[in-house]
Amino acid sequence: MFDIIPLRGGLDNVEGFFSGGVSVGLKQGGKKDVAFIRTQEPSPVTAIFTSNKFQAAPIKHFKRYGETFLTNFILINSKNANAMTGEEGINDITELLSQLPKSLNAVNPIMSSTGVIGYRLNRAKIAQAFELFEFEAKDSNGAAEAIMTTDRFKKEICLRVDLKNGGSFHIAAIAKGAGMICPALATMLCFIATDAKVPQDSADRLLKEAADESFNAISVDGDTSTNDTVMLISSGKSGVWNEEAFREALKLLTRELALLIVKDGEGSKKVVAFEVKNAASLEDAKSAAKALSNSLLVKTAIFGEDPNWGRIASTIGASGIACDEEKLSIKYDDVLVYSSAAKEMSKDTESAANQVMRQESYKICCDLGLGNYGFTAYGCDLGHEYVSINADYRS
Amino acid sequence: MFDIIPLRGGLDNVEGFFSGGVSVGLKQGGKKDVAFIRTQEPSPVTAIFTSNKFQAAPIKHFKRYGETFLTNFILINSKNANAMTGEEGINDITELLSQLPKSLNAVNPIMSSTGVIGYRLNRAKIAQAFELFEFEAKDSNGAAEAIMTTDRFKKEICLRVDLKNGGSFHIAAIAKGAGMICPALATMLCFIATDAKVPQDSADRLLKEAADESFNAISVDGDTSTNDTVMLISSGKSGVWNEEAFREALKLLTRELALLIVKDGEGSKKVVAFEVKNAASLEDAKSAAKALSNSLLVKTAIFGEDPNWGRIASTIGASGIACDEEKLSIKYDDVLVYSSAAKEMSKDTESAANQVMRQESYKICCDLGLGNYGFTAYGCDLGHEYVSINADYRS
Repeated sequence: MFDIIPLRGGLDNVEGFFSGGVSVGLKQGGKKDVAFIRTQEPSPVTAIFTSNKFQAAPIKHFKRYGETFLTNFILINSKNANAMTGEEGINDITELLSQLPKSLNAVNPIMSSTGVIGYRLNRAKIAQAFELFEFEAKDSNGAAEAIMTTDRFKKEICLRVDLKNGGSFHIAAIAKGAGMICPALATMLCFIATDAKVPQDSADRLLKEAADESFNAISVDGDTSTNDTVMLISSGKSGVWNEEAFREALKLLTRELALLIVKDGEGSKKVVAFEVKNAASLEDAKSAAKALSNSLLVKTAIFGEDPNWGRIASTIGASGIACDEEKLSIKYDDVLVYSSAAKEMSKDTESAANQVMRQESYKICCDLGLGNYGFTAYGCDLGHEYVSINADYRS
Repeated sequence: MFDIIPLRGGLDNVEGFFSGGVSVGLKQGGKKDVAFIRTQEPSPVTAIFTSNKFQAAPIKHFKRYGETFLTNFILINSKNANAMTGEEGINDITELLSQLPKSLNAVNPIMSSTGVIGYRLNRAKIAQAFELFEFEAKDSNGAAEAIMTTDRFKKEICLRVDLKNGGSFHIAAIAKGAGMICPALATMLCFIATDAKVPQDSADRLLKEAADESFNAISVDGDTSTNDTVMLISSGKSGVWNEEAFREALKLLTRELALLIVKDGEGSKKVVAFEVKNAASLEDAKSAAKALSNSLLVKTAIFGEDPNWGRIASTIGASGIACDEEKLSIKYDDVLVYSSAAKEMSKDTESAANQVMRQESYKICCDLGLGNYGFTAYGCDLGHEYVSINADYRS
């Protein structure tokens, strides 16, 4: 048994971690653009990367150390993705990291980048950060700011897990990501730090499991940007390990971050959970839920607060999964808008569904009535004038 | 040998066809909303339908006659898709068509619908059209108007094909479709009429072939709306048949219509051809070309006239096809923006590429350098304020 307590801030409460961010002029107006995260001692790191065939140079550089290894230093920059830069892009990283102060005793230092594709890093500018960093700082806020690109707000989360039989550990993260116009093109970085004493094989497995139900629920598999990265580093400083507690805390943390990314979706005002249940297979449930969270016509109907469930049905039918219009039912929160017994929506139902849609956040549940598999994906509305044609399609 | 001559208007020059459109109050403001197309004698019809699992009632009704059959009457309405309406939706069609004037001698009459999903047809209103139609009219323009939904302009094309060794025939079409925010959600109807004497097996095969290179090049397979239909009816009145000439004319006709649909993409200002060449397989070339025409980040860069080729590369990498960043090259018309020899774009190149992007229509060509397969898909920009964040991502 255990309790999970949310704390303020990001990485700062996690024992054995230091972080910070500075400005070296990659962004305009003196905004922070280079960050570091480091650990007191070399610590095991594991990561999940984009499935894009054109992986960026920092990902290729990471993989040269192996799948998992010990590191004590991560350098992160925004504004330049260092992608499609070939061998030179990898050399730029090696060269940059070799300039880190010797006093840091950097072990397998790694880099992570986000921004525009197709340009070499400005090494001279980024190296200035090594003069500016306060390496003993606990400034997670500064690091979170430095990794932002189109984000409207910083993304930091920290949880403390208290085990009932004594002992506690922290798990925290900073992330960037907002390009959620279409979840299929999410561009995100996420750095998770914990002082739990995580066994390496558990780290890999649990990170994969948590990402599947969070970041991969807002982004279609196989359709991600060149740089997407979710990294987990464990200092082990708490000396505590409890797999069940860690799994729960990691899932909560990644799910909250995924929702923050959805909420920051460029110009979005609403977060909607798309639950697909009683599908014939888990694959079907995932395909349909993700198709719903990706559909522009669904997104524009959400923006227009129009309970046009036909777009939901059409998207499910188009997703290629097993489905049957006589077994399907669709609910907006508790309002049943379609079932084989009540195909045509009454005015009262339409009005009730519209009430649901006026909320900032709600659930659209599609019961396929075929099997026992379910999956929930998250999406946002698509706003701005661009929607005027679709939002008012019916009037 | 043959000549293809574009004529004005739509179906009116095709021998043996009559058509027209009237208003019965489905649309507001007295706009035309119900159309008919009929032939003098029962004529062979063949069709390609949506791959959506929830096919609309008119498609199910059509299929009850078989794959191909003789018909002499098509009734078309806008504003209501008659989809997700179950058996009742099919009965509504049967009932409506049974009310056609006996004098028409309707043989296997069919119906086609477009509009909102999930509502029963207003049979009483639609039946009023039978009093209003001028069944001897050649008013393709009225029919084209009646089938419009979010279209900004009517879509009609007519071609005359003159065979060098004598004889000529017509092929013409009306179409609706504009929901091209994302080609994956194209909603379109297209009715092609010809007076060529088309053998039935050729009709099926040639229609499929033409659609693959036109409508299916602007819409991702398996991801279409409930009602999408492309129908070909042959009156045979010219008595002429020449497969080579007909194939060419049909391809030209469908390709032009597809481009009109792209051009009408809600709010779009530009039409871009995405050519993928030297792919390892035809499937790869198609996947990549369609992914490019679907990508919101590519569409917003097109709107912003920003030669941010990294979005092109990232989309190709994300499409899951075989690709290699050392073999890839990318051109905007004749301007080479990326190759392994010149990864980073110079200011001059960027400026030249920007000039290309200022045009209303141009080509983005991705040479994968792996094999001999190619495919071209068509897409439009994504405009309106919604793009402001993405179009200016780099500044």
